[in-house]
Amino acid sequence: MAKHIAAFGEVMMRLQVPGYELLSQASTLQYSFSGTGVNVTSALSHFGHRGYLVSRLPENAVGDAAASYLRKLGVDSSFIVRGGKYLGMYFLENGFGARPSRVTYSNRQESSFNIAPEGTYNFDEIAKNIDIIHFCGITLAMNDGVRRHMKELARAVKSHGGTVVFDCNYRPAHWGEGGYAKAKPHYEEMLQLADIVMMNEKDAIFTLGMPTDKTEREEQLIELLPQVAKRYQISLIAGTHRFINSDNTHSLRGFMYKNEAFTFSNLLTFSIYDRIGAGDAYTSGIIHGEIEGFTPDKTVGFAAAASMLAHTVVGDTPMSSESEILRAMTEAVGDVER
Amino acid sequence: MAKHIAAFGEVMMRLQVPGYELLSQASTLQYSFSGTGVNVTSALSHFGHRGYLVSRLPENAVGDAAASYLRKLGVDSSFIVRGGKYLGMYFLENGFGARPSRVTYSNRQESSFNIAPEGTYNFDEIAKNIDIIHFCGITLAMNDGVRRHMKELARAVKSHGGTVVFDCNYRPAHWGEGGYAKAKPHYEEMLQLADIVMMNEKDAIFTLGMPTDKTEREEQLIELLPQVAKRYQISLIAGTHRFINSDNTHSLRGFMYKNEAFTFSNLLTFSIYDRIGAGDAYTSGIIHGEIEGFTPDKTVGFAAAASMLAHTVVGDTPMSSESEILRAMTEAVGDVER
Amino acid sequence: MAKHIAAFGEVMMRLQVPGYELLSQASTLQYSFSGTGVNVTSALSHFGHRGYLVSRLPENAVGDAAASYLRKLGVDSSFIVRGGKYLGMYFLENGFGARPSRVTYSNRQESSFNIAPEGTYNFDEIAKNIDIIHFCGITLAMNDGVRRHMKELARAVKSHGGTVVFDCNYRPAHWGEGGYAKAKPHYEEMLQLADIVMMNEKDAIFTLGMPTDKTEREEQLIELLPQVAKRYQISLIAGTHRFINSDNTHSLRGFMYKNEAFTFSNLLTFSIYDRIGAGDAYTSGIIHGEIEGFTPDKTVGFAAAASMLAHTVVGDTPMSSESEILRAMTEAVGDVER
Amino acid sequence: MAKHIAAFGEVMMRLQVPGYELLSQASTLQYSFSGTGVNVTSALSHFGHRGYLVSRLPENAVGDAAASYLRKLGVDSSFIVRGGKYLGMYFLENGFGARPSRVTYSNRQESSFNIAPEGTYNFDEIAKNIDIIHFCGITLAMNDGVRRHMKELARAVKSHGGTVVFDCNYRPAHWGEGGYAKAKPHYEEMLQLADIVMMNEKDAIFTLGMPTDKTEREEQLIELLPQVAKRYQISLIAGTHRFINSDNTHSLRGFMYKNEAFTFSNLLTFSIYDRIGAGDAYTSGIIHGEIEGFTPDKTVGFAAAASMLAHTVVGDTPMSSESEILRAMTEAVGDVER
Amino acid sequence: MAKHIAAFGEVMMRLQVPGYELLSQASTLQYSFSGTGVNVTSALSHFGHRGYLVSRLPENAVGDAAASYLRKLGVDSSFIVRGGKYLGMYFLENGFGARPSRVTYSNRQESSFNIAPEGTYNFDEIAKNIDIIHFCGITLAMNDGVRRHMKELARAVKSHGGTVVFDCNYRPAHWGEGGYAKAKPHYEEMLQLADIVMMNEKDAIFTLGMPTDKTEREEQLIELLPQVAKRYQISLIAGTHRFINSDNTHSLRGFMYKNEAFTFSNLLTFSIYDRIGAGDAYTSGIIHGEIEGFTPDKTVGFAAAASMLAHTVVGDTPMSSESEILRAMTEAVGDVER
Amino acid sequence: MAKHIAAFGEVMMRLQVPGYELLSQASTLQYSFSGTGVNVTSALSHFGHRGYLVSRLPENAVGDAAASYLRKLGVDSSFIVRGGKYLGMYFLENGFGARPSRVTYSNRQESSFNIAPEGTYNFDEIAKNIDIIHFCGITLAMNDGVRRHMKELARAVKSHGGTVVFDCNYRPAHWGEGGYAKAKPHYEEMLQLADIVMMNEKDAIFTLGMPTDKTEREEQLIELLPQVAKRYQISLIAGTHRFINSDNTHSLRGFMYKNEAFTFSNLLTFSIYDRIGAGDAYTSGIIHGEIEGFTPDKTVGFAAAASMLAHTVVGDTPMSSESEILRAMTEAVGDVER
Repeated sequence: MAKHIAAFGEVMMRLQVPGYELLSQASTLQYSFSGTGVNVTSALSHFGHRGYLVSRLPENAVGDAAASYLRKLGVDSSFIVRGGKYLGMYFLENGFGARPSRVTYSNRQESSFNIAPEGTYNFDEIAKNIDIIHFCGITLAMNDGVRRHMKELARAVKSHGGTVVFDCNYRPAHWGEGGYAKAKPHYEEMLQLADIVMMNEKDAIFTLGMPTDKTEREEQLIELLPQVAKRYQISLIAGTHRFINSDNTHSLRGFMYKNEAFTFSNLLTFSIYDRIGAGDAYTSGIIHGEIEGFTPDKTVGFAAAASMLAHTVVGDTPMSSESEILRAMTEAVGDVER
Repeated sequence: MAKHIAAFGEVMMRLQVPGYELLSQASTLQYSFSGTGVNVTSALSHFGHRGYLVSRLPENAVGDAAASYLRKLGVDSSFIVRGGKYLGMYFLENGFGARPSRVTYSNRQESSFNIAPEGTYNFDEIAKNIDIIHFCGITLAMNDGVRRHMKELARAVKSHGGTVVFDCNYRPAHWGEGGYAKAKPHYEEMLQLADIVMMNEKDAIFTLGMPTDKTEREEQLIELLPQVAKRYQISLIAGTHRFINSDNTHSLRGFMYKNEAFTFSNLLTFSIYDRIGAGDAYTSGIIHGEIEGFTPDKTVGFAAAASMLAHTVVGDTPMSSESEILRAMTEAVGDVER
Repeated sequence: MAKHIAAFGEVMMRLQVPGYELLSQASTLQYSFSGTGVNVTSALSHFGHRGYLVSRLPENAVGDAAASYLRKLGVDSSFIVRGGKYLGMYFLENGFGARPSRVTYSNRQESSFNIAPEGTYNFDEIAKNIDIIHFCGITLAMNDGVRRHMKELARAVKSHGGTVVFDCNYRPAHWGEGGYAKAKPHYEEMLQLADIVMMNEKDAIFTLGMPTDKTEREEQLIELLPQVAKRYQISLIAGTHRFINSDNTHSLRGFMYKNEAFTFSNLLTFSIYDRIGAGDAYTSGIIHGEIEGFTPDKTVGFAAAASMLAHTVVGDTPMSSESEILRAMTEAVGDVER
Repeated sequence: MAKHIAAFGEVMMRLQVPGYELLSQASTLQYSFSGTGVNVTSALSHFGHRGYLVSRLPENAVGDAAASYLRKLGVDSSFIVRGGKYLGMYFLENGFGARPSRVTYSNRQESSFNIAPEGTYNFDEIAKNIDIIHFCGITLAMNDGVRRHMKELARAVKSHGGTVVFDCNYRPAHWGEGGYAKAKPHYEEMLQLADIVMMNEKDAIFTLGMPTDKTEREEQLIELLPQVAKRYQISLIAGTHRFINSDNTHSLRGFMYKNEAFTFSNLLTFSIYDRIGAGDAYTSGIIHGEIEGFTPDKTVGFAAAASMLAHTVVGDTPMSSESEILRAMTEAVGDVER
Repeated sequence: MAKHIAAFGEVMMRLQVPGYELLSQASTLQYSFSGTGVNVTSALSHFGHRGYLVSRLPENAVGDAAASYLRKLGVDSSFIVRGGKYLGMYFLENGFGARPSRVTYSNRQESSFNIAPEGTYNFDEIAKNIDIIHFCGITLAMNDGVRRHMKELARAVKSHGGTVVFDCNYRPAHWGEGGYAKAKPHYEEMLQLADIVMMNEKDAIFTLGMPTDKTEREEQLIELLPQVAKRYQISLIAGTHRFINSDNTHSLRGFMYKNEAFTFSNLLTFSIYDRIGAGDAYTSGIIHGEIEGFTPDKTVGFAAAASMLAHTVVGDTPMSSESEILRAMTEAVGDVER
Repeated sequence: MAKHIAAFGEVMMRLQVPGYELLSQASTLQYSFSGTGVNVTSALSHFGHRGYLVSRLPENAVGDAAASYLRKLGVDSSFIVRGGKYLGMYFLENGFGARPSRVTYSNRQESSFNIAPEGTYNFDEIAKNIDIIHFCGITLAMNDGVRRHMKELARAVKSHGGTVVFDCNYRPAHWGEGGYAKAKPHYEEMLQLADIVMMNEKDAIFTLGMPTDKTEREEQLIELLPQVAKRYQISLIAGTHRFINSDNTHSLRGFMYKNEAFTFSNLLTFSIYDRIGAGDAYTSGIIHGEIEGFTPDKTVGFAAAASMLAHTVVGDTPMSSESEILRAMTEAVGDVER
C-alpha cells in the first residue's frame, strides 16, 4: 500500500573528514547531502513509498549537486524549488572511543531554504498530492519566515485530509539562551496540528514545561506522554531511549503510545558506525508501520531495528529495505551472505 | 622439506566496496584475485613450499591482471593456461555489526575456467611435477566439463604416487534445488580418490546422507567422521567449528581425525577484519603440518592459528609466515613491534 | 517546450582504472553506469526535458546501484523493470598519447536486459506517455529477443504518433564475422520505422551495401544520404566526421540532412578527457534542436558543441546544460569563472 | 636582507573537486586555505623573508585547521586574532580544455574577518614590527568595517615609516551593480596611502574613470599609468598582461613603471595546472626585487617567472624558492633532475 | 603562564600503510613527521606554550616537507638547523586484533641529525631563550656525537637556570647486545643533569641495575623510585603502567613521585587507534601540570587523560587542547557534539 | 625463441608524490620497486622471455614487498638473495610544464645490495642457467664490493658462452668530483667483457676521454662509436638521442652500430607521462631484436617504439607486449579500442 509522503525541511551539505583525522590534520573531505526530511523520505522510498522533499536549493553548482544526490537517494524532487545562493553546511570529524565526534556548522541562516520568500512553494498543490507530511523541530528553530511556511503547509495538508507528523527534536544551540520559552508557543502550535509526534519525556518537561516528581526516565515518560496526547489531541506519540555503554556500544529501546497504551521494543545493543540520522530511521519505521497496519509490537520493533541498522550504514540517510529490517528483527548476526 | 603443491580451481576477481559503503553509495572498488586454490597455494608458498595453480585465465587485460596478481601472491603460474574471454567476478559489500556482509556474483558459468575444453591441461606433466594436489567442492559444483578435468587430474596424481586433498566445501547456491542429491555421487567419487579431506559433520549428514541421532555438533562429528574415513579410505579428515559471538567476535576450534584418533585445538576467540579465505588458511596449516611431520596437536594448533590470523588480514588470501603463526600460537597479543 | 523522451537500451557498468595505470598495475576501479540510452536521456534531462529509460536491471545490489546512479543522472526510472541476475560490464584502461585506451568486456549476453522474456515491458503504456523514443544499433546486435522488443516498441510509439530516433552505431565485434550481411535486414527494418537517423556514409556503404565511386568521405556522404532518406522515408539524418590529429586533439564536424538540404557545422578542434559517449551528446543536441525548432545551422552547431563539451567531461554521460553549450558555441575558452 | 612583511586580508577555505569531475559527479573534496594576503606572504617567506598575516579566524575546528595550514605555508600567525564562527569558502570545479573552471562561493559576509569589530587588531603593535604591508582590492569590496580596518592599518604603517603595497584587483561580482562608482573613492583613498601599486590600464579606465582614446592595451597602459603615479604619488606601479591561447596555454608579460620609466618582461608562454594565485606570485616577485635592489629588468623578469611557476603548482599559494625562479628565468625546461 | 619549552631530538619520517594491508599488499603510504621531541613540544603548543625543536634537517625536498609539517603541528622551527642529506624513516604496518603492528626502520645512523658536526647548534643562544628542555633516551642511544650535543645542551640550560626533563625510554634494538651496560653511564650522566624524569621500575632495575626482591610492578616502583630520586637529586619522577587486555583495549595508570610522595591516577581503560606517541602525551601532561601548578592529583590525572586521548588520535603527535583533556577527565564518553 | 636473461643490479623503492603536489604539500606517496635490471628483465618477460634478477633484498617487510612486486612484474626471483636490512629509496615529485620533476635519494650506500659480502651469489650456478646477462653503469658507481661482484659475474657468463650487455649510463652525482677519471678504468674493464653496449658519443668523449673535433652530436657519434667498437671488440653498440621540445613533448631517435654499419630509426615525437625507465625499454628492444634475428632496421624501430610507449606508461618499468610495440611502429594513434 504505497503512499505519497512529503517532508518539509532544509538540505544540509555534510563535509566529513575521512577516517579519524581532525580537520587540522586531513586534506580531503567526503561530502553528501542530508537533513531530517531527506532522511525520512529516503528511508520511506526504500520501503516502497514515494517520498518527496519540499525545500529550496540554490541555483548553482552546489544546488545541482544536492538535487542529484537526493534523486540518487530515491527522493522525488518535483516539489523542490530552486533559488538563492547558499546551502547550509556542516563539518563532521569522527570521534574514536574516548574522543567524541565533533560537528562545526557554517552559516545556515542565509541558506536558500531559510530565506525563501513568501509564495516560494505552492502548498495547495503539494497538499493535494500527498498522504502524509513530516516536519521537524530543527526547522522550527530557524526563523519566522520558515515557521510561517511550516505552519501554512501543515494546515494545507490537514485541510486536504492528510496526516501531519511532527518530530520535536529540540536543539539548544539553535534556540540560544532562554530557548525553551521562545520555543514553547511554536511547539504548541505544531503539536495542535500534528497527528503523529516523535518526542520523549524531556520534550514534555523542558519545552512544554510540564511538571513531574518522578525521577526515572521511564516513569516520567509514562506519566507525561498521555497528558501530552490528550492536551494536543495526538493519536500516536513515539520515540526512543538511548544508553551509551562504556564499551562504545549504544543501547536503544523504542516506545510508542497509541490508543491510551504504551508499547516498548526490546532493548537493542549494537556497535555504531555512523550515529547521525538514526533517529530519522526510527521515525520512518513508525510511519511505515502505521501505513502498513502493523501491530504496535511489530511497529515499534520494526522502527527500533530500522534505527539500529541506520547506525551501521555510512552517512546520515538510512539505506535498509523492509526485508533487511525484518530479517534483523528475527535473526542473529550471521556469517557472510554468499 | 619444501614440497611442490598444486591446486586445481577457478580464479575469481573480487570487487570490493572500500570501507562500509554499499554499492549504491560508493564510486570506487578495490579489486584482487582469489579462489580456494589460489588461497591454499599462496599460503603454502609463504611457508616455503612451491605452490602452483592449475587453471585457465582469459587472454586479455583481465587475464593479464589476474596472472600478475597470482605471481605477486607467490603462486607459480607455470601450469596456468590462457584462453577464453571471461573471468568470474564477485562484488563484496562489507557489513558492520548488525548488518551482514553481502556478496553478489557475476555470471561465472561462461568463465575461461568453466568452459575450458577437453585437452586444455597437460595433466600427466602436472602430476609428474607435484607432490600434492588440492581440490575443492565449489569447483565440483560447476559443470560436467570441470568435473571431468578434476577427476582426471586426481587420478593422474594418484597414479604418480602423489597425495590428493579434497575440501568438501558445499555451497547450496551453486547446486540449486535438490542439490545434495545431485552432489552426492560426485562427492563420493572425489572422496574415494582423496587422502586428506576437509569436512565436518554437516557434510556427512547432508551431502553423504549419513544418519545420526546425536544433536550436538561435536557428538555428531565424533560419531560420523570415523565412518567416513573408513568407508572412503581417507587417512586424515580435518575441519573447524565456528561460533559467532554477540560482540561480533568469532570463536574457532580446529579438529583432525587421523589414525583413528581425534585431536582438537583450543577454542580461539578473535576480532575479524576479513573472514573470506580463512578456511583455506586452516587447510594450508593442516597440509603444512603433515608435510613437516608435526604432532597432531601441533598441526591442529598451527592450522587454527593460521586461520585466526587469516581473519585479520586484508583480502581472501592468507599472508602469514610460519614464524608469525608459531608466535601467535604461544604469545598474548602484544604492543607495537619496533 | 519540455518533451518526454524515452530510450530503449542496455545499462552497462563501466569499471575504469583511475589515472593511467593498466589493470595489471592498479588495485582500484572507478565505477559508473551508462549506455547509449542512458547518455541520450540524461543529456536531454539536462536540457529540461523528461528522460526515461526503458530497460531491465538485475534484482540485487548491482541493480540497486545502477538504478540509483541513473536517477542521479536525472533519468526517470519509472519504466525500468527489475529481474534477472547480471549486468553487462566493461573495463576501461585510459590510454596516454601514443598508447590507445583499451576496453575489455565481460559477458553481456546473459544480462538482465539481454535475456528479458516476452512481456517484460508494457510497451503500450510507455508509448502513451512519451513523445520521442531512441534506439541504437548496439542493441540491435544483441539477440533475437532484444530485437523483437526493440521493433515492437518502435511500432507502439509510431502507432501513438510519437517520433522514432535510430542511431545506426555499428560495432563489428558484436556482429562477428559476416556481420554486415546479418545486420542489414534488421537495420532496414529499423530505418523504415525511424523518423530521425544518426548515421554517416560508412553505414550506407557497409551496412546497407550502397555503391559509390566517390573516394572522399564528404563526397560519399553527399551522394548517399539523400538516397537513404528517400528509400526509407527518413525526415532527418545527422552525424559527425571525426579526425584524430597528431597532437592528440580531435576535430569534429557535425552534419545534418533535412528537407533535401545538407547543413554542416564548423570544424571544432579540442583536447579530450573522455571520448566515450560524445556521440550520444551529438544525438541529444540534434533532438533538442528539433524539439525547440532551432534553425538547421543552430541545431548542428549546438549538437557539435554539445559533443565537444562531452569530450571534456568525466564519464560516458554528457553533463552540460543548454546555457553552457550555447556559451561554448560563441565564446573563446576563457579564464576561471569567479 | 630579510624583511618583515605583513598582509591584511581574509583567509578563504578552498574546497576543490579532485580531478575533472563536477560537484554533482564527485563525492570528495580537497581543501586548503588561501587568500591574496596568504599567497603573497607565503611566497615571500619562501624567499627568506618573514611573512605575517593580519586576519581573524573563527574559534573552532575550522579556524584551527586554517591556522595550522597557514603555518605550514610558512606564514607567521602572531598577528592572527581568533573570534567569530564562520570562514569564507569557495568550491572549485576544474575545467578541461573547452570547458572553463567554475567557482561557487559560500556566504562570506558573515565571516570572522568580515564582521571583526573595532579594536580587534592592535594596529600600532603590528606597524612597529613590520617593514611592508600588503592590501588588496578584494578586501576593499567587503564592507565598511573592513575598509576602516584597512585604512587605519595603512595609516599606522605609514606613520611608522613602513611601505604600503596595494593590489587594485577589482572583482565586479563583489561590488555589484554600479560598482565602479561605489569603489572609486575607496580606491583613491588607498592609492594615496600606497607606495607600490599592482594595477593595469583597465583599473585606470574603469575604476578611476580616466579617459583615453587609445585602443591597444599597451598604448593605454603607457598613456595612463604615469598619470596615475603622478596623481597619487606612487613610486612603483606593476602588473601583467595575460593572453589566453587557443591551445590552452597562457602567455604573460610583466610590466613595471618606476622613476618615470617602463620596463617589460619577455612574453612567457606556458601550460597551466592551477591558475588561481598566480597574480599574487607576481606581486611577491616585485616586492622581493625591490627589497633586494634588483634592476628593474631583473625584478620584472623575476616576478614574471615567479608567476609562470605559480601556474604549475598545486593550490592557490606559490611554492617556489628564489633559486628555482632564477633558474626558470635562464634555463630551458629540462629532463628529470636526479 | 605560557612557557618556552624546547626539545632536542631527531625528526623521523613515518611511512604508514593505510588501513590494514601489509607493505607487500598495498601501493600507497601516508607520511608524517614525528619524534619524541616533536610530540612533546607540539602537545605543549596545543596547551598554549611555545614549543621549539632543536634538531637538524636535510637541505632538500624531504627536509622542506619535514619543516613545513612541524610548523603545521605548532612547533617553532627557529632552532632547527638545515644540513646533510638524509632523514631517518620508518615503515608502519597496522596490526589488527591478534596480528600485531610492525615497524621497519630505514638506516637512521646517517641522518642529518645523527651526523651533525660539533658546532651545529648555538646552545648558549637556545638556553637563553627557553625555560624547559626535554631529552629522550632514544637520542642517547644514537652515537657519541649526538650524546655530546645532548649533554652540552643540558648543561647550558642548567647554567641559565632552566629545567631539564629526561625521558628514560630505553629501546633495546638501538643499544644492541649488552646494551644495558653500555647505556648505564650515559643514563646516569643525564639523570644527574635532570630535574624531571620519566621512567618506571624497569629502568631502575635493568638500566641502572638496582636490586629488588619485590615481584609486583607497583611494589618495585614504590621501593626503587625514591632511591633513584635521592641518588640523582631528581625533584619529580613520573611514568605509566600499561596493561594490554584480551579484548584489544589497553589500560593505563599514571604515577608521579614528588616531595617524597607517590600519586597515582585512576586506571583508565580505552580503545586504541594509534598507540605510538601516547607516552609523549603523558610527558607533556606532567610538564604542563608542573608549569600551571596543578596539584599532584590533577597533574597525574591530566597526564593520564592526555595519554588516553593520544591513543585515539591519528599519527604519533598528540592533538588535544587543555579543555578537551579536562573534559575527558570528568565526563563519560558522550554522543555526537553538535 | 624464448631466452633466459638475467640482470645484475640494485632494486630501489620509488616513493612518488601522487599528482603534481610537492612533498611539502602532500600527505601520501605511491610506492613501487624498480631499477635498471628490473626494468630490462621485466620488459623482456613481457616479450615472452624468462627474466631473472640477480640482486640482494633485505630480510624484512620492505624486502618482502620488493620481492612480491618483482614477481608481479614478471621477474623470476630464483636468483634473489635475502639479507641485510636496508633498501635504497628515492622520492619523486612530478614536474609540470615549466617546473621540472625532482628526485631526492635516501642513503643507498648501506643497502642490502651495496653491502652484500663476498660469496653472496652463486655466480657459476647463475651463469649456467642463462643466455644473456645485463649490467649498468649505475651499479658500477656504487663501491668496490659491488664492482667485484659485477665483474666476476660477467666473467662467469663469458666463460659459459653467454652474452654480456653493458649499459654505460653515467650518473655524475654518484661518482662525485673528478668522476670521469675514477670511472674510466672500470668502464674499460666492463667494455672489454661486453658484447652489446648501450652508449652514445658523450660516453666516448667524457668517460673514455676520446677526442673529437666534430661539434654535432650525430657527427661525433659516427666518428667515435666505430673506434669504441674496434678498441673493445664490441659487436653491437646502440643508444638514443633525445630532444626536449618547447611544447613539453620529447623526440627520440634510436641508433645502432653493428657489422661496421649504422642504422637509425625515424625521429619519434610524443607526449610523456613518466620518463623514468624509458631508456631501459630501448635496451630491452635491442636485446629482443637480436634474439629474434630482426633486421637492424626493425630492431632499431622496435626499440625506439618500445621506448616511446614506455614514456606513456605509469612507473619506471615498461609494460608493453611485443604486439603492442609492433602496432605502435605502424599505426597512427587511434580511437578507443573496443
